[in-house]
Amino acid sequence: MPELLPALAERRARRAFEAKPVPDDVQEVLWRAVSVAPSHGNTQPTRLLVTMSPGTRDRMAEALTEGNRAWATAAPLFIAVAVNPAHAPPVKNRDGSERDLWQFNAGIATGNLLAQATALGLLAHPMAGFDEAVVRDIFGAPPEIRVLAVLAVGYPGSPEQLPEDLQAKETAPQRRLPLDHLVAGDRWRPENALSAREHSGGKSTR
Amino acid sequence: MPELLPALAERRARRAFEAKPVPDDVQEVLWRAVSVAPSHGNTQPTRLLVTMSPGTRDRMAEALTEGNRAWATAAPLFIAVAVNPAHAPPVKNRDGSERDLWQFNAGIATGNLLAQATALGLLAHPMAGFDEAVVRDIFGAPPEIRVLAVLAVGYPGSPEQLPEDLQAKETAPQRRLPLDHLVAGDRWRPENALSAREHSGGKSTR
Repeated sequence: MPELLPALAERRARRAFEAKPVPDDVQEVLWRAVSVAPSHGNTQPTRLLVTMSPGTRDRMAEALTEGNRAWATAAPLFIAVAVNPAHAPPVKNRDGSERDLWQFNAGIATGNLLAQATALGLLAHPMAGFDEAVVRDIFGAPPEIRVLAVLAVGYPGSPEQLPEDLQAKETAPQRRLPLDHLVAGDRWRPENALSAREHSGGKSTR
Repeated sequence: MPELLPALAERRARRAFEAKPVPDDVQEVLWRAVSVAPSHGNTQPTRLLVTMSPGTRDRMAEALTEGNRAWATAAPLFIAVAVNPAHAPPVKNRDGSERDLWQFNAGIATGNLLAQATALGLLAHPMAGFDEAVVRDIFGAPPEIRVLAVLAVGYPGSPEQLPEDLQAKETAPQRRLPLDHLVAGDRWRPENALSAREHSGGKSTR
């Protein structure tokens, strides 16, 4: 059996960071990983709002939910994944219905960035729990800019640095749906219709 | 300067396929690459509609736009990236506005799949030009399933197999925005607001 790429297999959304900063040349490789990502019609809509100064980095705490603030403020670097949806217009189905692809494009680019970060020995933890307006305000981004995710980025630290309730999460097994739930070979099956929540019996799987 | 991961650097949306099929154990590594992708709240909404039989593979031509049909029908394998949006509910900003993340989640998973395919020596070409309803019909997927992309997958072939107008595209340089257009360090700048189309002087960049 061929092997899963280590840059994918070894990625985990851990929470403990070392204080060590991420050097500029290492950051630039992350930007290049985003740059080479494909996008429909080569629209390249993904932009990265990056904390350069300690002042900007510290302000990001204001944008985060309390749950994320408990660990993510230790990250030396934040990268917000942002898009102007007008840069990547929807495509049309035959009946005229539309398919938005700007979030999908930004997702592929973020997948690239996460794989590249893992390959460089970095921890990059994507967060959905933040306020878009606060992130826009911190960077002076215009109101049409949507912020899809904020990544807390740095070198991995030791779990002991974390609040006790988060330490166990660092080493808990990764919970995933079985492959036959993800894949419909030739024909959609009842398993494909189950959400992760339904599969785990009503409990969140994370 | 650290190096860009070859699985990202060597990916190109080429169009020439060898007839050689993609072995089952190779396909399974692609599914695993999707399985390990992160998703908000571990919702794992991405499903893959995969052509197993030659009959299903051949029917995919019906779903494609004419432009894609000209080359993609030579691919031995199609993978449609599908999501039930209800599996990954939106997150809320502080003002109650919502942020849809199902497409973003599927994008990260697709980024993983493309990197894994490249690492395995495969060509995986994502297409936006197809009809969602036809894809749903081919696989018997219910109407709530959204199809974001169809990937034409196989081993790379020789450009000479392609219609003449497509041969030049195989070796054309990859056109990308400069990195300083993608990245806003601490502060949003006018370059960040330019679309790829505006940057290339009104011409499509692909």
